[in-house]
Amino acid sequence: MKREVTTLKKLAQELKLSTSTISRALNDHPDISDLTKDKVKKLASELNYVPNIFAKGFRQHKTNIIGVLVPNITHYFTDTMLRGILAEASAQGYKVIISESNNDIIKQTEMLNTLLQFNVDGILMSISKMTRSVDSILNIIDKIPLILFDKASNKIPCSQIVTNEEESAYNAIEHLINIGKKRIAIIKESEYSYTSERRYAGYIRALKEHNLPIDEKLIISVDDISLKQGKRMTNLLLSIQNRPDAIFSITDSAAIGVIQTLKKFNIKIPEEIAVVGFSNSSHSTIIEPNLTTIDQPGERIGTTAVKYLIEEINNPSETISIKTIEIKGTLIIRDSTFKA
Amino acid sequence: MKREVTTLKKLAQELKLSTSTISRALNDHPDISDLTKDKVKKLASELNYVPNIFAKGFRQHKTNIIGVLVPNITHYFTDTMLRGILAEASAQGYKVIISESNNDIIKQTEMLNTLLQFNVDGILMSISKMTRSVDSILNIIDKIPLILFDKASNKIPCSQIVTNEEESAYNAIEHLINIGKKRIAIIKESEYSYTSERRYAGYIRALKEHNLPIDEKLIISVDDISLKQGKRMTNLLLSIQNRPDAIFSITDSAAIGVIQTLKKFNIKIPEEIAVVGFSNSSHSTIIEPNLTTIDQPGERIGTTAVKYLIEEINNPSETISIKTIEIKGTLIIRDSTFKA
Repeated sequence: MKREVTTLKKLAQELKLSTSTISRALNDHPDISDLTKDKVKKLASELNYVPNIFAKGFRQHKTNIIGVLVPNITHYFTDTMLRGILAEASAQGYKVIISESNNDIIKQTEMLNTLLQFNVDGILMSISKMTRSVDSILNIIDKIPLILFDKASNKIPCSQIVTNEEESAYNAIEHLINIGKKRIAIIKESEYSYTSERRYAGYIRALKEHNLPIDEKLIISVDDISLKQGKRMTNLLLSIQNRPDAIFSITDSAAIGVIQTLKKFNIKIPEEIAVVGFSNSSHSTIIEPNLTTIDQPGERIGTTAVKYLIEEINNPSETISIKTIEIKGTLIIRDSTFKA
Repeated sequence: MKREVTTLKKLAQELKLSTSTISRALNDHPDISDLTKDKVKKLASELNYVPNIFAKGFRQHKTNIIGVLVPNITHYFTDTMLRGILAEASAQGYKVIISESNNDIIKQTEMLNTLLQFNVDGILMSISKMTRSVDSILNIIDKIPLILFDKASNKIPCSQIVTNEEESAYNAIEHLINIGKKRIAIIKESEYSYTSERRYAGYIRALKEHNLPIDEKLIISVDDISLKQGKRMTNLLLSIQNRPDAIFSITDSAAIGVIQTLKKFNIKIPEEIAVVGFSNSSHSTIIEPNLTTIDQPGERIGTTAVKYLIEEINNPSETISIKTIEIKGTLIIRDSTFKA
């Protein structure tokens, strides 16, 4: 799994120039012609060159900086994890810098390389949607400690800190079945997303184990799972012939849209249609009726990820340790499924 | 306003060692004794030394990276500004790295220096609460472009992008006066905070201009202005002899706590007590009654800040341009103050 690192020497060989010329070209030295500078920079960029100045000069020198890369910095649940990361890192004397991939896999690779250039001691990463090739991530693992959290991948040999997504979703569906619901709809994401897929798997397993039929019309996939989409998809679900008696949304925000739409049509919650969300956002106790949801321990995921990363930073070893830590979510039953 | 930069040479003079020894000590070179390393690192840290390797070697070389420093990455309104920053930077081909001061002024200085070490092309900054000395920020302005946004300071000679906080708060209070309210309470922050102070100034001005008395008992200051504090302070306001007929909370989250508490006591909103928040968070249309609030254009503040910063990066000049751009907030009237 070792990947070739582009060095000054490699650039020099390729371009038949001295390493000193390469170095000065990259540093915009006035002695080097613009033509040569352009040529060197172009190849350096193509070969994904990470300046040796960082890799060598400072490598043994700990920076006490942790780099964090997430799909979307401004996402609610990401924020709760970041809170845990920031608190734990600060407690252990580490600075944190954060960047996002914006769910763009090219940007994801770019930002990983940028963090490497910054000579961070290690990286905490949550993977972008649609990450099918994991080469750029494997490339990082060869160089510095990396831990995946929340949005993980079994294709990457490193420690991973995740919620027990599948089991949490299973528990939510089983709760709906226990209160007598039989036609349970799910609103999930269409694009490949680790968490969406895991929650969907829990939904399917719960229906199967309780001998309930799987009805394709009740399985709704959306690109961007937002409050607005929750509203739209509820309109859709209400229009089908044999409408659902419960709706499980894999995010709280869409579940809020579900509740608002059901209320607009004066549909009784939970008697006619029960609603369950996922992640226990601050919205879930503001909406009325209060939303039944899975409390996802974001801060604990964050603090745990930092602990594992610092452990690896302090104990570098040739063999990569691969542990998957599942942090348990808790079903919180509120008025949207059960009235006391 | 030029500040002295700590160089390797300066460290060498102070410690009566060669610059090469200093350099190797900082890089943990095996030839240097631990005693010397400790001595060098201690002084480097005291004098706030930024490695020359970055400052010199790469300075002319654009990195196309913008550094962002905010008090709290996970704060709701900060997120809306970050969305604008990330989108605009990406559209203009810049990468963004983000860090937080956690409202800690020592951490704020540390992170500014870290961003400088990373050789970012410029910095966007929102100032930590209780920042009384701005020396560390002035120090940065001497070196690279810096723009303040949201939480600004007139002590710092640089461009600033802010909401028209004072006028927005004034408009909110005037609206309450127009619907017949006479005893208007305010819940604000106790520690020095730029936005809180500006909104408070708008509150005072509106009362004065409308010849309403200023009653100290209706001015509530809290350390950490949260939903929970909104609840507590409402209990307090309800306990005073001549209770308020309106409550203006300088954040939406505390306003949500106000509404929840008033509902608990079956106090009619807005007839008995009207409620106004600030920033138009997603909570404001989920709570019932929906919250009247100031829509604060976070994304526009973010995009505008990036535009001004890139303008400065591309046009370095000896004279620092100082512009304060006020982005207008909009009062959004909802059921918590006015029923149609």
